[in-house]
Amino acid sequence: MELFERLKKNLKELPGIGDKSSERLIFFLIMKGKVFSRELSDSIVDLVENTKVCSICGFIDENDPCKICNDETRDKNVLMIVEKARDVFIFEKTKKYKGLYHVLGGVISPLDGITPEKLNFNKLLERVEKNHIGEIILALPPSTEGETTSMYILKLFKDKVQKISTVARGIPFGTDFEYIDDFTLQCSIERRQKIE
Amino acid sequence: MELFERLKKNLKELPGIGDKSSERLIFFLIMKGKVFSRELSDSIVDLVENTKVCSICGFIDENDPCKICNDETRDKNVLMIVEKARDVFIFEKTKKYKGLYHVLGGVISPLDGITPEKLNFNKLLERVEKNHIGEIILALPPSTEGETTSMYILKLFKDKVQKISTVARGIPFGTDFEYIDDFTLQCSIERRQKIE
Repeated sequence: MELFERLKKNLKELPGIGDKSSERLIFFLIMKGKVFSRELSDSIVDLVENTKVCSICGFIDENDPCKICNDETRDKNVLMIVEKARDVFIFEKTKKYKGLYHVLGGVISPLDGITPEKLNFNKLLERVEKNHIGEIILALPPSTEGETTSMYILKLFKDKVQKISTVARGIPFGTDFEYIDDFTLQCSIERRQKIE
Repeated sequence: MELFERLKKNLKELPGIGDKSSERLIFFLIMKGKVFSRELSDSIVDLVENTKVCSICGFIDENDPCKICNDETRDKNVLMIVEKARDVFIFEKTKKYKGLYHVLGGVISPLDGITPEKLNFNKLLERVEKNHIGEIILALPPSTEGETTSMYILKLFKDKVQKISTVARGIPFGTDFEYIDDFTLQCSIERRQKIE
């Protein structure tokens, strides 16, 4: 069944989908029928074809500049630096942050050939200098590469921006201490937060 | 973003895909770009629109009757009864079975309103009587409902078919005894297999 193998190959390109889950999806789609498969396909193409990367911050949206960069009510004095567009989406869901974002498009990882030149730093420099950013918040992944990138940004901007902070590292809610790595546990003591 | 929510809703209909994984998939699709999303969508629609349910056995294929029912080299004397089309696919991959299949479309589960009348039994009776089936192999799920359905079929055909067997229950390869349920362990002793 050529059509079967073709769809299986495509599904397996998706993150988290392997041999068995792609087959399960295919049988589900067949059983679900033509109307749903057509609607699913249309919604994939409609979204992807109508999405642009924001030329200012690197987020994705139906418009360029994106709805965040275009929003006059946001605090243009604060810039949160994230690795990827999805992180913007995740922080936006918290409804807690009212500043702007900058998507680097990755983190520095010399072993994988990802040097600062390959990331969205030029635009970042330009934004910080042109817009008198008062605070940079680092929200990079808690990994060696994320820390390296944070250090790089710290060096780059420490004389140019009044305040550079990072999202708090610590114990997340709903987790037993048992499952938290040593580094985070150490952090949680060193960076303990005053509660009154 | 209306298009985002629409695709998310559709993706969440798929088995094993929830809130977070649908969002991860969407960002992956956007980053992967238009060519891939178009190809993925086309392959979904092409497969689903060109797939038929076999009017003989209930398997799915580009043709009706399906390639298995149409295959002159298969042993028309043996019929394996399975719950769903995907099971046919799984047993076919073993390349071990050369008989025919019959897809019930479910298992008997009175609590869920699935009575024998709602399953593909009429066709099964017709096939067994018309084609002088010599052996029925039961390959139904290892659950109470599966066992109930097996018992029902046994009663239905014990005087009509020479041999009724079931796929072997026992310890699967690569599993520690620790993880096997008591019922299977009991089965593995009672139905122990002679090795010489």
